[in-house]
Amino acid sequence: MTTSEGAARRDGEFPVTTRTTPSRRRDRVRHEVTPVHAVLDEALVCHLGFVVDGEPVVLPFLHTRLGENLYLHTSSGSRLTRSVPPEGLPVCLTVTLLDGLVLARSQFHHSLNYRSVVVHGRAHRVEDPEELVAALTALVEHVVPGRSAASRPGSARELAATAVLRVPLAEASLKARSGPPADDPADADLPYWAGVVPVSTVLGPPEPAPDLDPAVPLPDHVAGYRSR
Amino acid sequence: MTTSEGAARRDGEFPVTTRTTPSRRRDRVRHEVTPVHAVLDEALVCHLGFVVDGEPVVLPFLHTRLGENLYLHTSSGSRLTRSVPPEGLPVCLTVTLLDGLVLARSQFHHSLNYRSVVVHGRAHRVEDPEELVAALTALVEHVVPGRSAASRPGSARELAATAVLRVPLAEASLKARSGPPADDPADADLPYWAGVVPVSTVLGPPEPAPDLDPAVPLPDHVAGYRSR
Repeated sequence: MTTSEGAARRDGEFPVTTRTTPSRRRDRVRHEVTPVHAVLDEALVCHLGFVVDGEPVVLPFLHTRLGENLYLHTSSGSRLTRSVPPEGLPVCLTVTLLDGLVLARSQFHHSLNYRSVVVHGRAHRVEDPEELVAALTALVEHVVPGRSAASRPGSARELAATAVLRVPLAEASLKARSGPPADDPADADLPYWAGVVPVSTVLGPPEPAPDLDPAVPLPDHVAGYRSR
Repeated sequence: MTTSEGAARRDGEFPVTTRTTPSRRRDRVRHEVTPVHAVLDEALVCHLGFVVDGEPVVLPFLHTRLGENLYLHTSSGSRLTRSVPPEGLPVCLTVTLLDGLVLARSQFHHSLNYRSVVVHGRAHRVEDPEELVAALTALVEHVVPGRSAASRPGSARELAATAVLRVPLAEASLKARSGPPADDPADADLPYWAGVVPVSTVLGPPEPAPDLDPAVPLPDHVAGYRSR
């Protein structure tokens, strides 16, 4: 990977490897760095896969990206954290954004519009205190930009209870579908409605904590944060 | 699993196994069948983990549930389908619904409100023609209820190109967080706003296919399908 990784950074693309090349619909796959970053940055949740006793485990995590690394939030005592060996834990990190329901005239061509990024790599626990704080700040900023300056940073005790895993963004790809259904021409005259129902993730009106002092105003970074 | 599985069905709960018991925040976990079904039925996308050459792979799939089985849509030629051995492929199927951004006074207590179901089992390819058609119908109904009667069923050629994997719902759990932030009492008087920003998945106005005959009306199953 080392050589490919360097090459990827030079030309703005991730290396094309067997596991970042889907077996089907390769026309839907991209390896450019910029759209891969965009999907990772938009998603609020990722799914991390790792292997325990030879069997797969997939769990949801909050993630963030700092340059060419992804960071995942977990705790010092979690099974995941404790299972990271010195050489790193092989992981597959996947993010999927759903954009639409694709309703074709034929059931066969029913589909979903989506953007999904798959990252393969080895996760390491962040040990450096400065990198840990930077990652935790970025995790809070990933949830709500502007939030880290309007909340209390972690204490020494809290930092000790927190674990952050780093996954290098070196082997990644984006698979996406967009646009209308792709019915067979022979089906064009069937009497069925065809089209797309858009799907989006929407933020609702902020709900103050029950014990919030009513004198504390709703800050701009929350009030203005209306949609992803 | 056989004994536990039988027991699970009798008392309405999935068996409590090591891998369906999180290492952290066990208070957030439930093993009752009904809420696990509800999350699986609400989610439009699942993430399936499996092991290839000892390393994890996580990919998004459309799924549906029929009774005590989950069905995943893929194609006959996919790497996943081709890697299913006669004894079944060990998989972990995870679904996550995001419900809110939890903004605490302390960065440490920032969180997400969510409902996530994790299913462990072995995937088999559906070979029985009746089960295959029933699963494909259910997959279309999962995307939009009422849709299967208003679209053309698969032809023999289309069915041959499609693969459906069955994952028994025998070992599963739900982990969920809801409600306001859980700040430490010592932080209650910090001058920071605290609360929850709700997150929801919303369907937009249907977009007819460009080649749709304008005489075909928008059917009730699409027009009335406004939110999950």
